[in-house]
Amino acid sequence: MTAPGENLRVNGERLWDSIMEIAKIGPGIAGGNNRQTLTAADGEARTLFKKWCEEAGCGVGVDQMGNMFAQRDGTDASALPVYVGSHLDTQPTGGKFDGVLGVLGGLEVIRTLNDLDIRTKHPIVVTNFTNEEGTRFAPAMLASGVFAGIHEQDWAYAREDAEGKRFGSELERIGWKGQEVTGERKMHAFFELHIEQGPILEVENTDIGIVTHGQGLCWLQVTITGKEAHTGSTPMDMRKNAGLGMAHVLTLVDDIARQHQPHAVGAAGHIDVSPNSRNVIPGRVVFTIDFRSPDIELIADMEAQLRSGAQEICERLDLRVEFEKVGGFDPVEFDADCVATIRDAAKRLGYTARDLISGAGHDACWINRVAPTAMVMCPCVDGLSHNEAEEITPQWARAGTDVLFHAVVQTAEIVE
Amino acid sequence: MTAPGENLRVNGERLWDSIMEIAKIGPGIAGGNNRQTLTAADGEARTLFKKWCEEAGCGVGVDQMGNMFAQRDGTDASALPVYVGSHLDTQPTGGKFDGVLGVLGGLEVIRTLNDLDIRTKHPIVVTNFTNEEGTRFAPAMLASGVFAGIHEQDWAYAREDAEGKRFGSELERIGWKGQEVTGERKMHAFFELHIEQGPILEVENTDIGIVTHGQGLCWLQVTITGKEAHTGSTPMDMRKNAGLGMAHVLTLVDDIARQHQPHAVGAAGHIDVSPNSRNVIPGRVVFTIDFRSPDIELIADMEAQLRSGAQEICERLDLRVEFEKVGGFDPVEFDADCVATIRDAAKRLGYTARDLISGAGHDACWINRVAPTAMVMCPCVDGLSHNEAEEITPQWARAGTDVLFHAVVQTAEIVE
Repeated sequence: MTAPGENLRVNGERLWDSIMEIAKIGPGIAGGNNRQTLTAADGEARTLFKKWCEEAGCGVGVDQMGNMFAQRDGTDASALPVYVGSHLDTQPTGGKFDGVLGVLGGLEVIRTLNDLDIRTKHPIVVTNFTNEEGTRFAPAMLASGVFAGIHEQDWAYAREDAEGKRFGSELERIGWKGQEVTGERKMHAFFELHIEQGPILEVENTDIGIVTHGQGLCWLQVTITGKEAHTGSTPMDMRKNAGLGMAHVLTLVDDIARQHQPHAVGAAGHIDVSPNSRNVIPGRVVFTIDFRSPDIELIADMEAQLRSGAQEICERLDLRVEFEKVGGFDPVEFDADCVATIRDAAKRLGYTARDLISGAGHDACWINRVAPTAMVMCPCVDGLSHNEAEEITPQWARAGTDVLFHAVVQTAEIVE
Repeated sequence: MTAPGENLRVNGERLWDSIMEIAKIGPGIAGGNNRQTLTAADGEARTLFKKWCEEAGCGVGVDQMGNMFAQRDGTDASALPVYVGSHLDTQPTGGKFDGVLGVLGGLEVIRTLNDLDIRTKHPIVVTNFTNEEGTRFAPAMLASGVFAGIHEQDWAYAREDAEGKRFGSELERIGWKGQEVTGERKMHAFFELHIEQGPILEVENTDIGIVTHGQGLCWLQVTITGKEAHTGSTPMDMRKNAGLGMAHVLTLVDDIARQHQPHAVGAAGHIDVSPNSRNVIPGRVVFTIDFRSPDIELIADMEAQLRSGAQEICERLDLRVEFEKVGGFDPVEFDADCVATIRDAAKRLGYTARDLISGAGHDACWINRVAPTAMVMCPCVDGLSHNEAEEITPQWARAGTDVLFHAVVQTAEIVE
């Protein structure tokens, strides 16, 4: 081969069939999936994935967090494996592709190598990380976080779901608590293919997103306290309307994010108004502001502007304001070599591609702390995700997996 | 007597004791009351009130809506009675005074007349209207509304509570469905004493509010539809943030109300954000705007400004906006003679007084449609009402009842 695997393509039909097969496990109520982590459905999907991996000639290891590792051996026993994967768990009203594409795309890499009888120097390991979604057991990316040394495993085991069931007990109950020490494996590199979960690639009619950074985030919970009062019998100048304070702060959030372009974003998704009655002026409003940027200094700057601006607004309106930082995540800069490998692969294959900054968190963001890492993204319809209506086309899935294949194989080094 | 009852005062201690006695029925969890309409507690309070009225020499009639009428006869059998009263039902987390003061203040008028052995030409009837609060069976002021011909009685009977129980069946169940045809009674006048439920009298250190008008209201439910999207992966210029649209509309509501001073008010008390998740840009927000003014044209003007302004905001932000009028109430102008009678009484008694516009709805607002009507108000602590912490002082209760007494007795005409 002149260039490694220049004209090689994955089997898009087989990939799509596997995605549709897994989607039958833990179906949602509107065409998507409800296959939350550590449920019976999660166990069933793991069993099927393991069977497929074994049929593809892989040995499957499981660590103490339930992370699964299906290895296709390389020719050099001393070479560290190239890892590839994502997660098979879904949101309660999740789609068929978020996470699944990355795991089954990894499996398709191995199946294609088998078809073509290609050997690589480095082993290739397809990974399914436990509980990426974090809906049942917060936080998200729990098991990749333990793998990367971000969280203690005992702390992770003690996470409880809404019914008080513990992560550790549920992992044992479904039979997927392995023996391997979590994080013991060393990686030559890690690649994750994922749907964009945003609108850019589709709007720009671009096949491939080359993820250079993950945005950092700051979640600031704001509590504005005014005074509950009758909407009719309280003159305008005697009001302490917490809802009005919130309104001014929300427009400020938007202004601040727009002043930090091109990459910053800001909004409040969660808003709780109290007492939330038509004829009572809100006495208390709690809402969470989500600021993100790939630049940690800009995040700090946005947070500082918000705090002082909200303070001014609330003083002017005779309201009290309190802030609590309820979430934070430093920006991620993916490995330059891995990124370049993806960019080369897309170019070589003739796909249209552009750099992207991932706005969402992914297992790759934690793994990047312990191994050279990068991500490939493919478009999704209407930017929709975490929704049963999440959709991609077989062509998008195939293009993403083609690029993943070439990046992984180039990194794992074809043995001629 | 040179002036009718110039130096006469009610028995403030007896009034207060009666209020505290009724408050023992249907206690709340925080010092107030949960004595919702047509509950066992409502029945118990009615029975005690009837007993007190009978002990004061009154005959008690009940109409088909459960409205209670305790009559002290006058000397002229052909003279229409002067009615006085309010309601004994409370909010689920209500106070001890909202409504109760007006009913027991009316009873205190009769008790005082008995003490002083004063006869009046017109009978005096103390009234307890059923379901003023409307929390269990919407709408508020249901039975005074039927009395005044605003609602059909069969429609009122068919109102259902959250458990699907009907007003008519519950009225029968507690044994207070009377025989009298609702609204058959003709009134010479109607006076209602009520706590202000707003902050003005207390802030201005004024004893008496002379209610000249009831504010009209317009409840406009606004639905703003944008697009649910990930807070991280959606660039600022690709967002359709319904929460941001709401924020701009809420500040507009405040601006509009402030442009229509002195009496107009505007706010949104009820806000529902969907999907209300920290990392999802709100795709849909529903909120209800409450505009009030004593001038029907100003209400229409505020509504029109809001509709066009919200339309502009939403077009600019690429959002869809819909409006639904979910409540409306024309302003009330109380009877000039009744108002003057209250003003004279306050002056004669040496109480500080000021004209007020009632921001809340009251039974008097409906009765004003069928009889000359006016209201007396007394301060309440911090403007707080519809809250278990609602509070007034015995002195305020007594001053309001003194004024009520003089207004009622002057209208009923003392027989020398």
